[in-house]
Amino acid sequence: MDVLDQIKWNEAGLVPAVVQDAENGQVLMVAWMNRESLQRTVDTGRATYWSRSRQSFWVKGETSGHTQTVRNIALDCDLDTVLLTVDQVGAACHEGYRTCFFRDLVGGSLVVNSERL
Amino acid sequence: MDVLDQIKWNEAGLVPAVVQDAENGQVLMVAWMNRESLQRTVDTGRATYWSRSRQSFWVKGETSGHTQTVRNIALDCDLDTVLLTVDQVGAACHEGYRTCFFRDLVGGSLVVNSERL
Repeated sequence: MDVLDQIKWNEAGLVPAVVQDAENGQVLMVAWMNRESLQRTVDTGRATYWSRSRQSFWVKGETSGHTQTVRNIALDCDLDTVLLTVDQVGAACHEGYRTCFFRDLVGGSLVVNSERL
Repeated sequence: MDVLDQIKWNEAGLVPAVVQDAENGQVLMVAWMNRESLQRTVDTGRATYWSRSRQSFWVKGETSGHTQTVRNIALDCDLDTVLLTVDQVGAACHEGYRTCFFRDLVGGSLVVNSERL
């Protein structure tokens, strides 16, 4: 059986994909993948997600130029989460930050973490 | 308004929590949190998740001893994903591996990545 058929896609046919920067290990973002988007990612080496809001495939950087070239794809023990290691061009975050995780929860407030900018 | 009320909990009241090793930046696991489990994590400094299968709180390491002391909590731009940086004792994975992401997808097969053991 194909490994992709063993993955435990959720009721919407999706799994979360954690994206890590090959350069420094920073967690850049989390997006969602369905079977076809993972297959396209494998086939093309370009990170390709499923946009839940737009209900369409989303090749990262296709419009922004902030592409992700995939170096490695890992799966977790339960086969319900993907971990991509990527070469990130520019900002992973649509708000222009390198990582989507640019704010910390500190004392009940959100504080921009300057180390992650 | 409390930051926790701004988080975009999904239809089941949950968000994914990515867990990263403070020591070396390795992504250890992804679990799920509801509002109360995040609040308990903040209050206690011990990573506390919501088990979807058992429908109960789950203090990481409570039975195994493989605790996670939380060093940092970040939120993503969309406020729908948490990133914990933790001091991990022992194995994060219930299969005994340091990380749950111990297998890579290579050529259509799952291959144990010895660098992650």
